[in-house]
Parts: sequence; structure tokens; C-alpha cells
Amino acid sequence: MADTPAFRTETDSFGPIEVPADRYWGAQTQRSLQNFKIGGERMPAPLVRALGIQKKASAKANVELGAIDAKIGQAIVDAAEEVIDGTLIDHFPLVVWQTGSGTQTNMNANEVISNRAIELLGGEKGSKKPVHPNDHVNNGQSSNDSFPTAMHIAAVEQVHHELVPALEHLHAALDAKAKEFADVVKIGRTHLQDATPLTIGQEFSGYVTQVAYGIERVKATLPRLLQLAQGGTAVGTGLNAKAGFAELFAKNVEEITGLPFVTAPNKFEALAAHDALVEGSGALNTVATSLFKIANDIRLLGSGPRCGIGELSLPENEPGSSIMPGKVNPTQSEAMTMVCAQVFGNHTAVTFAGANGHFELNVFKPVIIYNFLQSVRLLADAARSFTDNCVVGIEVNTDRVNKLLNESLMLVTALNPHIGYDNAAKIAKKAHKEGTTLLEAGVALGLLTPEQFSQWVRPLDMIGPR
Amino acid sequence: MADTPAFRTETDSFGPIEVPADRYWGAQTQRSLQNFKIGGERMPAPLVRALGIQKKASAKANVELGAIDAKIGQAIVDAAEEVIDGTLIDHFPLVVWQTGSGTQTNMNANEVISNRAIELLGGEKGSKKPVHPNDHVNNGQSSNDSFPTAMHIAAVEQVHHELVPALEHLHAALDAKAKEFADVVKIGRTHLQDATPLTIGQEFSGYVTQVAYGIERVKATLPRLLQLAQGGTAVGTGLNAKAGFAELFAKNVEEITGLPFVTAPNKFEALAAHDALVEGSGALNTVATSLFKIANDIRLLGSGPRCGIGELSLPENEPGSSIMPGKVNPTQSEAMTMVCAQVFGNHTAVTFAGANGHFELNVFKPVIIYNFLQSVRLLADAARSFTDNCVVGIEVNTDRVNKLLNESLMLVTALNPHIGYDNAAKIAKKAHKEGTTLLEAGVALGLLTPEQFSQWVRPLDMIGPR
Amino acid sequence: MADTPAFRTETDSFGPIEVPADRYWGAQTQRSLQNFKIGGERMPAPLVRALGIQKKASAKANVELGAIDAKIGQAIVDAAEEVIDGTLIDHFPLVVWQTGSGTQTNMNANEVISNRAIELLGGEKGSKKPVHPNDHVNNGQSSNDSFPTAMHIAAVEQVHHELVPALEHLHAALDAKAKEFADVVKIGRTHLQDATPLTIGQEFSGYVTQVAYGIERVKATLPRLLQLAQGGTAVGTGLNAKAGFAELFAKNVEEITGLPFVTAPNKFEALAAHDALVEGSGALNTVATSLFKIANDIRLLGSGPRCGIGELSLPENEPGSSIMPGKVNPTQSEAMTMVCAQVFGNHTAVTFAGANGHFELNVFKPVIIYNFLQSVRLLADAARSFTDNCVVGIEVNTDRVNKLLNESLMLVTALNPHIGYDNAAKIAKKAHKEGTTLLEAGVALGLLTPEQFSQWVRPLDMIGPR
Amino acid sequence: MADTPAFRTETDSFGPIEVPADRYWGAQTQRSLQNFKIGGERMPAPLVRALGIQKKASAKANVELGAIDAKIGQAIVDAAEEVIDGTLIDHFPLVVWQTGSGTQTNMNANEVISNRAIELLGGEKGSKKPVHPNDHVNNGQSSNDSFPTAMHIAAVEQVHHELVPALEHLHAALDAKAKEFADVVKIGRTHLQDATPLTIGQEFSGYVTQVAYGIERVKATLPRLLQLAQGGTAVGTGLNAKAGFAELFAKNVEEITGLPFVTAPNKFEALAAHDALVEGSGALNTVATSLFKIANDIRLLGSGPRCGIGELSLPENEPGSSIMPGKVNPTQSEAMTMVCAQVFGNHTAVTFAGANGHFELNVFKPVIIYNFLQSVRLLADAARSFTDNCVVGIEVNTDRVNKLLNESLMLVTALNPHIGYDNAAKIAKKAHKEGTTLLEAGVALGLLTPEQFSQWVRPLDMIGPR
Repeated sequence: MADTPAFRTETDSFGPIEVPADRYWGAQTQRSLQNFKIGGERMPAPLVRALGIQKKASAKANVELGAIDAKIGQAIVDAAEEVIDGTLIDHFPLVVWQTGSGTQTNMNANEVISNRAIELLGGEKGSKKPVHPNDHVNNGQSSNDSFPTAMHIAAVEQVHHELVPALEHLHAALDAKAKEFADVVKIGRTHLQDATPLTIGQEFSGYVTQVAYGIERVKATLPRLLQLAQGGTAVGTGLNAKAGFAELFAKNVEEITGLPFVTAPNKFEALAAHDALVEGSGALNTVATSLFKIANDIRLLGSGPRCGIGELSLPENEPGSSIMPGKVNPTQSEAMTMVCAQVFGNHTAVTFAGANGHFELNVFKPVIIYNFLQSVRLLADAARSFTDNCVVGIEVNTDRVNKLLNESLMLVTALNPHIGYDNAAKIAKKAHKEGTTLLEAGVALGLLTPEQFSQWVRPLDMIGPR
Repeated sequence: MADTPAFRTETDSFGPIEVPADRYWGAQTQRSLQNFKIGGERMPAPLVRALGIQKKASAKANVELGAIDAKIGQAIVDAAEEVIDGTLIDHFPLVVWQTGSGTQTNMNANEVISNRAIELLGGEKGSKKPVHPNDHVNNGQSSNDSFPTAMHIAAVEQVHHELVPALEHLHAALDAKAKEFADVVKIGRTHLQDATPLTIGQEFSGYVTQVAYGIERVKATLPRLLQLAQGGTAVGTGLNAKAGFAELFAKNVEEITGLPFVTAPNKFEALAAHDALVEGSGALNTVATSLFKIANDIRLLGSGPRCGIGELSLPENEPGSSIMPGKVNPTQSEAMTMVCAQVFGNHTAVTFAGANGHFELNVFKPVIIYNFLQSVRLLADAARSFTDNCVVGIEVNTDRVNKLLNESLMLVTALNPHIGYDNAAKIAKKAHKEGTTLLEAGVALGLLTPEQFSQWVRPLDMIGPR
Repeated sequence: MADTPAFRTETDSFGPIEVPADRYWGAQTQRSLQNFKIGGERMPAPLVRALGIQKKASAKANVELGAIDAKIGQAIVDAAEEVIDGTLIDHFPLVVWQTGSGTQTNMNANEVISNRAIELLGGEKGSKKPVHPNDHVNNGQSSNDSFPTAMHIAAVEQVHHELVPALEHLHAALDAKAKEFADVVKIGRTHLQDATPLTIGQEFSGYVTQVAYGIERVKATLPRLLQLAQGGTAVGTGLNAKAGFAELFAKNVEEITGLPFVTAPNKFEALAAHDALVEGSGALNTVATSLFKIANDIRLLGSGPRCGIGELSLPENEPGSSIMPGKVNPTQSEAMTMVCAQVFGNHTAVTFAGANGHFELNVFKPVIIYNFLQSVRLLADAARSFTDNCVVGIEVNTDRVNKLLNESLMLVTALNPHIGYDNAAKIAKKAHKEGTTLLEAGVALGLLTPEQFSQWVRPLDMIGPR
Repeated sequence: MADTPAFRTETDSFGPIEVPADRYWGAQTQRSLQNFKIGGERMPAPLVRALGIQKKASAKANVELGAIDAKIGQAIVDAAEEVIDGTLIDHFPLVVWQTGSGTQTNMNANEVISNRAIELLGGEKGSKKPVHPNDHVNNGQSSNDSFPTAMHIAAVEQVHHELVPALEHLHAALDAKAKEFADVVKIGRTHLQDATPLTIGQEFSGYVTQVAYGIERVKATLPRLLQLAQGGTAVGTGLNAKAGFAELFAKNVEEITGLPFVTAPNKFEALAAHDALVEGSGALNTVATSLFKIANDIRLLGSGPRCGIGELSLPENEPGSSIMPGKVNPTQSEAMTMVCAQVFGNHTAVTFAGANGHFELNVFKPVIIYNFLQSVRLLADAARSFTDNCVVGIEVNTDRVNKLLNESLMLVTALNPHIGYDNAAKIAKKAHKEGTTLLEAGVALGLLTPEQFSQWVRPLDMIGPR
């Protein structure tokens, strides 16, 4: 009995080439594998899924427009759905560092879908019959419009399904904490120096606002990301596409994804520039700015247990020190701030790549979408991890908060209306010099009684306007 | 007769200090001058103007709320107007590299306005009577809310009055060129390689779209920049501000500027973070991405005169080469692309600074607004200069455009429907190998006549979908 | 017959936890897996290898210093060698986005090596006997010195074994091309405009110099990367390390790697800052700057085939256009310039992370080494791919080069000494206006004969100083 | 009596143009002023000075080579010296945002020096006689080699005369503090959590090392910055320069500056790329990384006075709070960290600009040198200001340091050898739970006596290896 051969022959205009027999990809994918042995970062899965959506929407439009046969169209749709649901992900072996138009990955999709469709129709892989990768799967399309279309589909899907819900999850947890701590008055800090008091709820309300605005910021970039390049074909003119294909395609994508995609009003811009992704990356960059501040504040507020600020207790998720109880390393803050550093870097890469298009095509497409999708995934995952493993478990060390508040000299400002500015300053100076509390210094100076002090110095009265 | 003394004595809580007699600033400004001998970059003029607006709006609100005397309030308003109109700009000597809250520049404004108001009321500079820099000019305010308020006022004014009109100016000029060149068919280029044709009007329409979207992007960030921190005082609680001050203040700023400013819903976020300016800088970064692409394309299209692409003629504004006619250096593109590089760098600085706030205050305020305002000004100025000195004078070298189009082998695709793909490919290969035109090769191969060629190969039919 | 259980129980100070039975990792690794579901980027393989080296060198030093038993030490060495050679890579499942000290990955190494050593000695995985992950494998160490030590080992190994050879490979290929094209005179271009001539060999010599300097730059950062933090333990003091351990360890690493590692003179700096990696990333950033320029120039010089510059022919590695002969997309340049954009972004991430350490420890360690190693690998791989798939196959289109040179008007400067500046300028202006060559214009004006022209206008005389 | 006319007429190949009568500049400068109304950032003074050096060195070389008359040469030298010493700085009005080759500023220098030399020789400004801006001042030069030459001269002078001494000044001050605090044991902090102790001297020794390495890093980039492009003329070939000019010129610059400049071995690289400045900017970026860490640590260690860490007292240079003694805002740290943020941004701008050269010329020269010189100046000034106004005045709050150290639970590790790990852990847990000291908990548990505690727990024994 004969062994199954390990390879089969596929062909393209360059000639024949050996391809692993158990893979659906064809000649152009195989050539890219051999010519671009650079790094190990494969095209992101959400981009591959988006190419599946793009091929399915194209096939349906092409059948409707009479450009391809209905049976072939259905086979393409069936195969594309296996790309969409991730079944065929191992058949997309190409790395990010290939041709800058993403042509090789678009061909990878065409080849995989055509071979799988051939198989579904009982044909022979590599025969290009009855489903041809170019003539049928790529019908009326060019890599130059298909790939940027997939970029936008992947970006919007990930933002909508991953990032926004994750930020909403974090927002809800921070908001719950702000409410939980609404009445805990603490010392404020500006310039890292003791300042007038506020509640922990107020402090957290700043974080809540940052995250809420972050969601707004990300959503504000969607109008331009929802525009699809498809229909522009090679240079934006739509040569070789049928009239109406672009609009029909966009409608199909809207149906498949449930997201309000539209065809781009200007296809020249949509191929030659990726400003919409640079803009979107700018929103991610701003979200990272917010999350960095929040995660950094929280670890500083949780520093200690004895020799830091120690106002908050963070949940302990893993061993800190075997002998040292209370040494809880703020590891979730660390993961979050590292993620933010990565997002800042990715934004620089996206900006550089976005600026360097030439004429009718930007050829930094793969590096742009790789960085954008990494930023989205990292922010979404980190927001969830930070929420579930840190925020929800934050507790206030009330004793510590009160001790710091009462030791603080800033409360002296509450005495001004009662004993005058000069006397209040005297108390503060004495307390500072001698390391005592305001109460002790005030009583020692004979300027007030303990009863007066507790009546006059009420931090709760200092947390809002007069 | 006695000489006018060169210095007068001003005082603050640190004690007396000598100040140049002809300057309105006081002790705290003088100390900053002496303690921060760093660089030479002064606080930007639009920020100083914004502080004038902030002091005027505060004085009016304070009079209305009964916090300060009406006569003193009017003197403050009068002095503030001289700050607003630029008359007193030489009295703001402080550099960007000072305290990170901008306190020293806020005090600079308080001191200048109080001394000028004192002078208007017939008093003696430095006496703090009858107008005290803190008790009157800064009444109900803190540097911590005043400075970020001025940052937002300056940012929005510059975006609204400078950047958006400049981009609209560029947009109109590019759009006019797109229309002027609507019928000129040229060879397209993808991967820098010859591709299918399009019109120069279509190519320019991509630029037009980029600029139009850029305006949308910048405007989309205004909702959060229009929020004012004033009323938060030292830590966001509003301690020492009167109830209603924040809202009244915002209304006054709206009246003074004619722009729809509002009071920030959450003052804690407004002091502790500058996400709105990071977001805004992200929009500027995206605009720079667009302008880089446009300016770079235009200089590449104008390269030559003999040995480049040479499809466009750029206006000659200065001597290129004394002996070499037609060597027109694309100097406006060079200035524009340098400006874009600066904006990319400024955005990195703003991002880093925006992420590194602590607790109740971000203390990178001066460096954030310095970079933001430099980016706005450079983009606005460069957009105008590029428009007036380059775009409006761009001409098409029709002969060159036609020659390249007709020499191109890409037009061969138009023969497919008439002689079949294989024959068309034969013609292209022969022409490529022998360096001839498609027409010459086709005739030589006996596959078509010159008449057929000119009937079948019509670039104008290739610039849209079927 | 009982099934093999799928899980075994491991323990740490938090208590018991289930671990896949076929994995060597233990409780702390497992907890990290569950607490940090962020992204999919695992710790880079060179870093895991470096931890193997670090554990082996420690075990040898500990045996020599009498800190651990020789037999246990040998088992650790044997297990560590399987980490070094990559055999155990699947037992390092942790992602980059974990605790910022890399503690969890250091514990991963301790756990895997201890369990594998236990197995080699016939013991039971998870028993911690006779080889304990902390007491034996991590003896005299802390994550705080072990992880940065592994960072430096990985960085230097990759730079030395991957990047420098790859750059030397590119350098040799460019140098060979510079020599091959040493006599081909071409038109120069400044401001993208035609300028005075040079040889292609001269042009390529600029690239050769850039790469040569790039190698120097990278090597110039090694002195500080060769310093190892080991021996600093938790905060840099070396508490719990034996005197002499640091030096002995460094000597062992030198022997294992064959690279001149030394112990860091100051351990406080070595834990709290990663300036050496920021510096190294700066060198990678500069190399990327050079490679971007080279790859971009080469694709511009190869643009065409008909409507671009077309002086160079780049090798065709994959189908460009099925019908369009000569349309060779510069895909290797595209991959290279995308890689450079990524390196620019990674450098921003490393810079941000490097600046944000606190007190005795920088807790951005994983994100720093992840970006550094990605930059090194991408630059090395891209340099090799660009060399082998592009540079070595570059050919000069001599006809095109000569045609452009001869059409150029810049050669007119050669006529000055013979017919005077004014007459030369007349010729240039006429040629420019009428679109003719200088020869045609000169003869038409009666200012020279064809013989004189070819005698006087010798581009070869214009490629050096007088 | 006739008024002095306000303008005179200057001419260039474009024709006549009006120039302010009291300015030395000529037609090309005036045209640039009118064509580039972009921003307000003038060419930096050190660059103008460097152009003076470049013109002086050229004139001397030209006289020696017989290219220009000795009397004219001397007049050029005399005028150039007024540029070098800053006398003529007001005659260099051009902004950074001009032609990317810096040609207009090179012409500005040629025009100013020629007019001033004419004046010195008794001629008439604007007459170009007897000293012609091009034929004499710019003899044997091109903007394309002169401007990058001036860039390198300015960069090296500023690094050598400003940055390195300023960093040495900071280094000496930090080193003095490290020695002053050599015996003060404090609690260490990792992950912002309490850790094992070290001395403040050890902590500061980390900063000392960072600055020392920073100086090494900057110096390591000088070899390539000391290479001068002069002699390459327009495209690097040296066309129109005399043989030997490049070497003679470099020798002259070495004599004028006292710095070891050499002629660049490869002039093509020297015009087409600015990798040496990107590399140098990378070193500045690393220095900023170090200074950010140091300044940030110091403000955190000085946070308080009551509610922060408070181990250090920073000098009070200006009023913090009028009523709140001890509230010393860390304003020098704030200025320093803002400067670092700017340097990070400038480095991004330099990198982007450095990568985007085309063919024989990088046309981002002005933006590169503007950012490089700003970074150098800001770092140098900030290092001096931070040293003089902060570092030298830092004092240790011994009571606070001791209190934190003794309260810390980390010292429990010192008990292990005496009472065993389990008992030590019991003490720590009890102390943590009840908020007591280790001593109190240990005595309460009957595990040790106060005498034993003070004998066994000696922080001074915990600051080095066994």
C-alpha cells in the first residue's frame, strides 16, 4: 500500500512548487514562506478571520451581480466560513514581514479558500478547478483593496467586541469602588506633597472619568474605520470591478458582522493612506495614557506595607515574600503599565508606517494592522485582568488613611476663620518643627481646646466648594 | 535730579527680592527666573493670552458672587485685557522648564495683573494695594485649576482660529487642483511600480479626502478640550471656591472667546490627567501623517526635471541652480515634511508627559501645552505656506504625463477582451524585452493594427468600474 | 489498569494547585498562567535559554563555594543544559505581561529545572526533593538579580551571534555591488532633483559605510551590556549571596558563552535601571534608520519598469503581475522598511519602560527585553533576507542609466571652462525649453560641435575633486 | 538733509529684492523670510556660530590652495569671526522650517559674511564686490556639504563644552551625597514594596553610576560626529572642490575649535544620511532615561512632609504653601522630568527625519540639528539647575529613615539563623496583623528578649553579601 505523499505540486505564473500535502495553501503562499524568513510573528488571527469575511461578502456580491456561478459562489462562502470561524487558521502560515500590500496573505486566503472549496465540491486540491483562486475567489478584487478592507473589518470587530466591553468592565468596577469609598476622607497629594483632603471616592471618580472618556475616544474614531476600501481594486479607480460591487459588498459585510460598515466615499485615500488606523491608534495611545496613570496611582497608594503610602490594600494573587506577610507586589499594575509602554511604542510604529505611503498605495499595511491589533488585544486583556485580579479586590486601610489625614498639617487651613491666619500658621510651624499633631501644637500654644479643634477641623467640610 | 532706580523691591512669603523697576512682575516670577535657568523657550504667547482670559473671567465671576469689590474687579479686568491683547507679553519672561504645575506662570499673571491694576488705580507697584495678586487676582482659584484651564483655552483658540482655517485653506486649494486636473489621465503607481491608470484629479481627490478627514479628526477632539478645570482649586474638590463659581466662570469664558466652553463635569480628572490634550495631540499626529504623505508625493511627482518622474511642475520661489533651468527644489514640501517630523516628536513628548501624573495633579503641564501649541502653530503655518507657495502654483506637465502613460505596459490589460490574455501577454513581453511600445510590439507580432490599438486601448475607459 | 492522571499537585506558600502532569513547571508558574491572561506573546526563547545559562552558572558557583551539594549541583547543571539547548522550551508557557520583575519566569526556570533534576535523580516531580526550586536552584539568587542577568546574556548573545553576522553579510553584499558598479556613471539626485553625476559604486559606498558604522554602533554598546547584575540579590546589596559569588558566576557565564561577560561594578544601578538596554536599543534604532534609507533608495532606483527611475533591476522572487512583465514589486524593501518601522516603535516602548523604574527595581523588565530581542531578531532576519533575496541579485539597467545621464541638463556645468558660463546657461535654457539634449541645443546655437561636446562633457571627469 | 533709506536692493538670479538697510543679509535670505512664514524657531545660535567656523576654515584653506586672494580671504576670516563670537547673530533671521538642505541658512552666512567683509574693505553692501557671497565666501563649497559640516561642529561643541561638563557637575554632586550618606541604613523598596535594607549611600551610588555611564555613552558617539562632510560638495564626489581641500579644511576646524575633527572617509554617507546625529540623539535619549529615574526617585523620597515617604528633605527655593510649613514642592525634579519628556520627543523627531533621506541628500537637516541642539541644551541646563538648586541641598531626615527601617517587617529575615524560619514568620505575621513592631511581637510571643532582638537584628549587617 502506497504512502500518502508528503507534498503536492501547486503552480503559479512562476511555475510549479512543492507544497505540504495536508495544507490548503498554494504556490504563492509557499513562495512567501521561502522568501520571507523574518521573525516569527504570523498575521494576526482577527485579520485572517476578516479576510474570510471579505471573501464571503465578495462571493455573495459576485453571485448577485452574475460575475460568478452560484454553485461556485456557495462553495466559496462555505470555505470562507471555515476561515471566519478559525477552523483553518493553521493554513495561514505567513508572517507580518512580507510584501507591504499584504498581497501574499490575500493570496493565501484565495488559495486556501479555493482548495477547500474544490475539496467540498469533490475536486482535487491544486487543480484550480472548479474554483480558481484568482478568477473566482478574488473575482473583481485586488489585494490592494481586499487587504485594507480586511484591516478595517478586523480593527472594528476587535475594538467593538473586545476593547470596548473590556473598558466598560473596568469602568464598572472602578465606579463601584468610587461609590464604595465615597465617604472615606483622605489627604490629597499634589506635587507628591500633602495637600487638602478629598474622598477616596472622589479620587476614584477621576479614574472612572478617564475610562469613560477613553471609551468615547475609541468610539469617536469608528466612523472612519467603518469605511471599506473594497471596490477600489488596484489603484482606487475600481477598474475590473463591476459597478455596484463596492456598495453590495459593504452591505454584505454589514450583514455578516452586524456592524455598520459602509463603502469608503473615496477609494484613492482608502488604498494610499491608513490615516484611519493612525487615528485609531492615537485613541488607543490615549487610553494607554489613562490606564498608565490609574495603574501607577493604585500601586503607589498600595505601597508598603509599612514604609510606603499604604492607603489601599491590593489583592494578593500569588506569593510575594514567603516570610514577609503583607508584602503584596502590585503585579497587575506592573502588567498593565508594561502593556501601556507597548501601546506607546506600537503607536510610534503605526505613525511612522502610516506616513510613508507612496502614490496610490501605502505598503506598510501588515505592520500597521499587526501593531493596531496587538494594542487592542493587550489593552482589552489587561483591562480585564486588572479589573478581575486587582480592582474588584481593592480595600481601604481605614486606619492608615485616617492616621495620615489626622497627622497632616494641611488641615490647619480649617482654623483660619476661627483663630486667624497668623495663629493658624503658628500652630502649623510648631507642629512641623516638633513633629507633633496640629491638635497638640494648638493646645500647647493655648490657641484652642481639644473640643474646639474637633469642632473646627472637619475634613468632611473640606471636600467641596463653600 | 535723582535717577529712576533700576530695581524695586517685591516680597513674597520668602521675603524681599529685587525686580526690574520697569517690569510688572513680582517676587515669585523673579525667583523662578533665578531658579530655572533652563533653555530659552518661554511660555507660548497663546497660553499667556489664555491666562489673561482666565483672570478676566474669574474677576467677573468673583464680582458677581460678591467675592471681590467691583472697583477692584474692574481694574483686574482692565489689566487682564492688556494681557489678552498681547500688550504685556514682555512681562511674562518665564520658561517652560519650571514647576510642573505652571504655578510660577500663574503667579506671573497674578503679579503682572495686580501691579498693572494697582497702577491703573493710582497705586504703587509692589505694594499689593489695593489689588493683591493672591487675594484678589487669584481669588477662589488655585494654580492647579487655573493653569489647566488656560491650557484648554489656548489649545481650543489656536485650533479654532489657526489650524482649522489653515487646513480648510489647503483643502480648498487641493480640491481646486483636483477639479482642474480631473480629465488628465496618468499612469498609476503601486509599490512604486507602474500600475493601471487614473486621473490626476482622482489622485488629488485622495489628498483632498485626507485633509477633509483631518479637519474632522481635529474637531472630534474638541468636546473634551472645551471642558474647563476651573473651580476644582487645589485638588479638584473646589475647596475655597464659592459654589457656582465654576459654572459662572465657564459662561464668562464662553462670552469672552465666543467658543462653547463648559465647566468640566469631573474636576479630579481635569487636574490629575491631561488625556484631552494627549487625544488632541493624537489628532495633530494624524494630520501630520496625512500632510507628510501629500507633501512627499508632490515632491516625488515633481522630481526631475529630466531624470525623475516629472509629471508635475512645482512653482519656483527661489533660486535652485544658477545654471540649471528647471531645477526647482521642492522646498515647501521639505519645510512641510520637517514640520511633520516635529509634530511626530512632539506627540511622543506629550504622550510621555501625559502618562506620568501622580495622584491629584499631573505636573507636566508646561511641557504638554508647549508641545501641543508648537504642533498647532507649525501645522497651521506650514499648511498655509505650502498652499500659497506650492499647491496653488502646481501645473501638470501634460507631455510628460502622456508620454509615461503611453509608454507604460500596464495598458496591455485593455487588450484582453479583444485578443485574449495570452496574446496580450505576448505583446507585453515583447515590448518589455525590446524596449518598445505596446503598439509597436503588437503590430510587429501581427496581432493588431494601429487603428485597432487606438480603438481598444483607451486609458479614459480604465479609470472606473465597469 | 489505571489511567495516567492528567494533573499533579504542586504547592507554594499559597497552597496546593493543579498542574498538567506532563509539564515540569510548578505552582508559581501555574498561578501566573491563571492570573495573567494577557496577549499571547511568550517570553522570548533567547531569554529562556539565558535563564538556563544563568542557573547553570549559579549552580557551578554554588558547588564551588560549598553552598549546595555537588550531586545536586550536577543535576541542576544537567537540567539547565536542556533549557539552554531548547529541549524544554514548551515548559515555559508564561507571557511577557506578568510581574514587571520577571519573577514568575525566574520561578518558572527554578521549577522546571528542579523538577527535571529531581526526575534525573529518580525522584518525584512536585516533591521538591532532593532538588528544591528555591533552596537549591535559586540558591544565593533573587529574581531581582537573576532576571536582569538573563536579559543581558540574551541581549549580547543575540547581538553577537545573530545581528552582527547578519549586518556583516549585508555589508559584504553591498560592498561587492559597490565594486561591481564602480565605473557606472549616473546622474546624482539631491532634493529629488537632477544633480551632478556620480558612479553607482560611489552611491552604494554610502550604503556600505552606513552598515559598517551600524556594526560599530552596536558593538560600542556591548561594554555595558556585558555587565551582569548577578550577586546583587534583592536590592543590590548582595544580602544572602556569598562573598565572591558574583565574580565566580560571571566567570562561569564567560566560559559557558565564550563571551567576555563581567560582574557589574555597581549592582544598585544594574537592578534599578536598564539604561544599557535603552542604549542598545538606541543603536538598533540607528541601524534601522540606515536600513530604512538603503531599502527605500533601492526601491526608488528600481521603480518602473517604464514610468519610474528604473536605474536598477531588482530580482523577481514571486509573481508581480501575471500579464505585466517587468513589474517586479520591491517586496524585500517593503519587508525591510516595515521591520524598521517596528524597531522605531520598539525603541519608544523600551525608552518609556526604561525611564519608569522606582527606587531599587525597575519593573518593566519583561517588556524591555521582549522589544529589544524582537528588534534584534527582525533586523538580523531582514538583513539576511534583504541581502539574499534582493541585494545580491541587483543589476544595473545600463541603457537607462546612460539615457538619463545624457538627457540630464546638469552636465552643462562641464562646458563652463570652454565656452563660458553665459553661453553654457544659454544652451541649458534652450534645451530645457525645447525638451532637447544639451548636444542638440549647443549645436543648434552654433556654440559647439558634436566632437567638442563629446570631448568636453565627460561625466567620468565629474565624479571627484579637481 | 536726506534720511537714511530704510532698505537697499540686493539681487540674486531671481532678480532684485528689497532688504532692510541695516542688515547684512542679502537676496536669498530675504526670499526665504518671505516664503517660509512658519513658526518662530530660528536656527539655533550654536549652528550659526558653527557656520562662522566653517566659513573661516574654508577661507583659510582656499587662500592656502590659491583658490581665493589672500586679502579677500582675510576679510572673510575677519567677518566670520564676528559670526563665531555672536556679534552678528541678529543678522541670521531664518527659521528652521525652510529648505531641508539648510541652503538658505548657508546662503545667509555667505551673504552676511560677504557684506560685512565688503564693509571692512570699504566697499558697498549689496555690491558683491570685492567679496562675492558665492564665488568667494562659498568657494569650493556647496550647501550640501557646508551645512552638515556646521551641524557636526555645533553638535560636538555643545556636547563637549556644555553637556559633558554639566553631567560631570551633577555626577560630582551625587557622588558627594553618596559619600555623605554612606552610613545611613534605610529600608529598600522593590515593586514599591518594603524590601531588605541598604544605605542611602548605596542607593545614590546607583544614580552616580547612571550619570557616569551617561557621560561614557555620549562620548562614545563622538568618533562619528567628529567626521566632517566638507569637501563632498553637491553630491559627495567633491566636484569643484580642489584636491586636498577637505583635509586642509578639517585641520583648520581642529585648530579653530581645539577639538579633534577629521574629514569624513566617505562623503556620500555624510551628505545622504545623518545617522551620526541619530546615534548621538540616542545617547541623549539614554541620558534622559537616567535623569528621569533619578529626579523621579528623589521627589518620591522627598514626598510628604507627613503623608509621603519623607526620607529626604529637598531644598526650598520658592514659596510652596504660605500656611503649610514643610510643603516643599519638588520643582527642580519637575523641570528635569519635563526636560526628559522633551528629549524623548525630540529623539522621535530626529529618528523619523534621519530615516527619510533620499538618494544623495537627506533634506531634514534643519529639523535634525534643531532637535539635537535643543536636547543638548535642555539636558545641560537642567543638569546644572538640578544640581545647584536641589542635589547639593538634599538632607536626610534621619528620624524618619530610622523609624521606617525599624517599623519594617523585612528585618525579620535576620532572625532566621537564631530562632528558625517558622518562628520568625510567626513574629512577622503577628506584627503585621496587630500593627506592632517585630520587637513587640517577638517579646509577646516569648521567642526573644529585647536584648536578643537588638543583638540579632542589625540592619548594618544586611547591606552586603555574607
